[in-house]
Amino acid sequence: MEKFFNPQSVAVIGASNSPFNLAATILNLLRHNCYPGDVYAINRKGESVHGFPGYSSVLDIPGKVDLAVILLSASQVPGIVRQCGEKGIQRIIIESAGFSEAGEAGHLLQQEMESHMRTYGIRILGPNCLGTLNTQNRFCCFYGFVPEKYGEGFITPGTISYIIQSGGIGVLVLDSFSNDVCKVNKMVSIGNKSDLDEADFIEYFNQDNTEVIGMYLESIRDGIKLMKTARRVKKPILAFKVGRTEEGSHAAMSHTAGMANNDVIFDSACRQAGIIRLKSISELHSLPKIFTTMPLLRGKNIAVITNSGAFGGIAADILVEQGMKLASLAPHTQERLAKTGQLFNIKNPVDLGPAMSKQMFIDIFDILLSSNEVDGLLPIPNIWQDVVIEAILDLIEICKYYQKPAALYIPNSISKILTIRTKYQIPVFESPEEAVRALVVSNQQYHYLLKKERYHERNSFECDETKLEHALRV
Amino acid sequence: MEKFFNPQSVAVIGASNSPFNLAATILNLLRHNCYPGDVYAINRKGESVHGFPGYSSVLDIPGKVDLAVILLSASQVPGIVRQCGEKGIQRIIIESAGFSEAGEAGHLLQQEMESHMRTYGIRILGPNCLGTLNTQNRFCCFYGFVPEKYGEGFITPGTISYIIQSGGIGVLVLDSFSNDVCKVNKMVSIGNKSDLDEADFIEYFNQDNTEVIGMYLESIRDGIKLMKTARRVKKPILAFKVGRTEEGSHAAMSHTAGMANNDVIFDSACRQAGIIRLKSISELHSLPKIFTTMPLLRGKNIAVITNSGAFGGIAADILVEQGMKLASLAPHTQERLAKTGQLFNIKNPVDLGPAMSKQMFIDIFDILLSSNEVDGLLPIPNIWQDVVIEAILDLIEICKYYQKPAALYIPNSISKILTIRTKYQIPVFESPEEAVRALVVSNQQYHYLLKKERYHERNSFECDETKLEHALRV
Repeated sequence: MEKFFNPQSVAVIGASNSPFNLAATILNLLRHNCYPGDVYAINRKGESVHGFPGYSSVLDIPGKVDLAVILLSASQVPGIVRQCGEKGIQRIIIESAGFSEAGEAGHLLQQEMESHMRTYGIRILGPNCLGTLNTQNRFCCFYGFVPEKYGEGFITPGTISYIIQSGGIGVLVLDSFSNDVCKVNKMVSIGNKSDLDEADFIEYFNQDNTEVIGMYLESIRDGIKLMKTARRVKKPILAFKVGRTEEGSHAAMSHTAGMANNDVIFDSACRQAGIIRLKSISELHSLPKIFTTMPLLRGKNIAVITNSGAFGGIAADILVEQGMKLASLAPHTQERLAKTGQLFNIKNPVDLGPAMSKQMFIDIFDILLSSNEVDGLLPIPNIWQDVVIEAILDLIEICKYYQKPAALYIPNSISKILTIRTKYQIPVFESPEEAVRALVVSNQQYHYLLKKERYHERNSFECDETKLEHALRV
Repeated sequence: MEKFFNPQSVAVIGASNSPFNLAATILNLLRHNCYPGDVYAINRKGESVHGFPGYSSVLDIPGKVDLAVILLSASQVPGIVRQCGEKGIQRIIIESAGFSEAGEAGHLLQQEMESHMRTYGIRILGPNCLGTLNTQNRFCCFYGFVPEKYGEGFITPGTISYIIQSGGIGVLVLDSFSNDVCKVNKMVSIGNKSDLDEADFIEYFNQDNTEVIGMYLESIRDGIKLMKTARRVKKPILAFKVGRTEEGSHAAMSHTAGMANNDVIFDSACRQAGIIRLKSISELHSLPKIFTTMPLLRGKNIAVITNSGAFGGIAADILVEQGMKLASLAPHTQERLAKTGQLFNIKNPVDLGPAMSKQMFIDIFDILLSSNEVDGLLPIPNIWQDVVIEAILDLIEICKYYQKPAALYIPNSISKILTIRTKYQIPVFESPEEAVRALVVSNQQYHYLLKKERYHERNSFECDETKLEHALRV
């Protein structure tokens, strides 16, 4: 699997110098990224493209080829897959569309291609996909990615890996991370999942340097396999699945080949397998930072700290509505808070008032995080001065010390939030709802982990599995 | 009421040259904004402040004074209110805190101040508020507003007026509008509502150049008055009220003086009076643009147009979950769509595919908006080229022609959305959920309006009112 993301030699089949040739954009990006592996262009004329040597067939390439990337019209693909098999290529990414997602004729082509795959023991990613992206070595075979637009995404390698069924979502995540504290590690677009599917990549990301796994799914190919795999994984798995409604499900079917899955079953599978199901697509990039920058939330008692009286009430409403609790501070905790200075309110939500020193912030963070009544913080500070930023930078360390998380929000315009987050690299969420949601999923992951560890000891899931298997057959 | 926003003469009581004097920040802003009215500083020494003449008492000011703004410690306020009465000042803004919101002693001070108010027939805004802001003439008595930070909010006068119970929320709105197509007209911070309340300002904003009224409320003083007023207003009224939960309600009580109102009653009052209740604080600034740039949504059938296959499904899910419908396109509409070019999908969601000309966009907008099956659009175009922007600018006009709205979203990072929205002044929403929500509130307003017009004819609400009155007493 590693060679899908880190091939020592790769043949891009269909890349030529014709204008608007999509496969050539892959070579252009690899050239721009100074990819260190051997790269070949395969086209009818055997011409070199973007400086990479060209051949008219993979069979003519002198050395071993780790990976073939195919971007040709669907009808040509089965023949080319057979050629790859003859050459001994064991991994193929088929980016071309026009297979199962495109009706009966496409379905037949996909079957033909799959029979060659089985004959030669090839592992296939796709068809109808973008392939893989790896920020660690700057490998990327996403067609249409121009360095001017997406080059930035490769500059800082990260630890969040994505399994997606849409290039658009990949772009959205990469784009959004340019103003965030998280970055992408690897990304794989799985398309029609003729062979490799989401479960195979969860398995792989469980073993590499990935910290959080994100998924955008339009269909589930094998619910049982997904569940079995996810259960073994202790890294957070965040999944957004389209098709919560019949209308959404039908729309997704025309995009990638999949059957309309019963959403209720997926939901229950997520809960049983410890997959965090996302509520909106933006959570795919907004939530991972609660896992990479903060300890898990072990309980539901949250202390709100703000110098905006309004946001105390707003936060309290959201916490309770999302199933968290407003921590009830013990009298001695309130006394300790009172001693830090002129607070407007020493009950939770703690209202800081306007004048604050860095030390006062730190003292309050410390008092709250060290108290047994508090499992996590929801700080909503107005960034008046630099001291607030400095205090927040210290807060990240204090959270690690007490093994309790804080989900930050700044009650300011979104453009100011983006500026502060990017400049100081502090994990600020974009709305109070999003910050609370981060606490919710952190707590969810904590409980999943407890359950997974317990299940691991018992090594048995049979009962649930049978139920699910039955449900999926209905 | 007009003179609260447009005083020809104003006395700022408590403004001095002491360091950290808050009232002086008001004079500094008026100086910076070149406010054309007469402005006086009242302080013990009678010294002039920021170039405005100073007096030691309002009684010493030679001419008539339209408005007094008081920012002194609470204990001094009742005496000053009496002096203002003696001077014949009929409007006072009390910004000082320390009244009903601050326990028994403060409550007594508020009562004393109110008795002077009644004696002299003064109308009072506050206490514990920021006063008023008017972008049309650049009047603003919000203390703590420094020109460097908030000056921008006055540059472009707008048409959205706000009634708020928190300065922080005012700042959030002003800040957010710096990257949006809407701007503020007037803003009033009502604090403890000793005299003037939200209903009085709704009444006023119903008569001025306001297009949309936004409210942030922590308490309702007089539910019946609010309802009676709101019923007469045909401009959209958007209200966010804190205290949907008991915890949020308690937190709000410590911020501004108010009783914990029964949220269910407020909710039902909103529905009966045609007030659109907001679900998150960001909707206060994100939603007005659907009213200022687009016709109202008369039905629930929405056509989605996208060139991101993923967002077709995502949008369909959100539409259905929020109570809208995916418009079912008639065969002849689909045929007309097919003729425009190489579309990926001519069923709703319409999938444009990657290559598009401006004319193709315009044709598709026109076909959909002119068809009887479609009440409104949810376009989710990827901004590949400038032609898309040009087409969207035309779309705004096409919507006006057909009297059907479009709620736009661009499937890109929030920073790109902000850039495009600011640069081209097109009404783009920040998430697909927000765009759908805009359609929902537009349709809600349409139905309220129908109801209000009908009610207006009948001129009777008695039955509902009695019920509400009863409920409020419980």
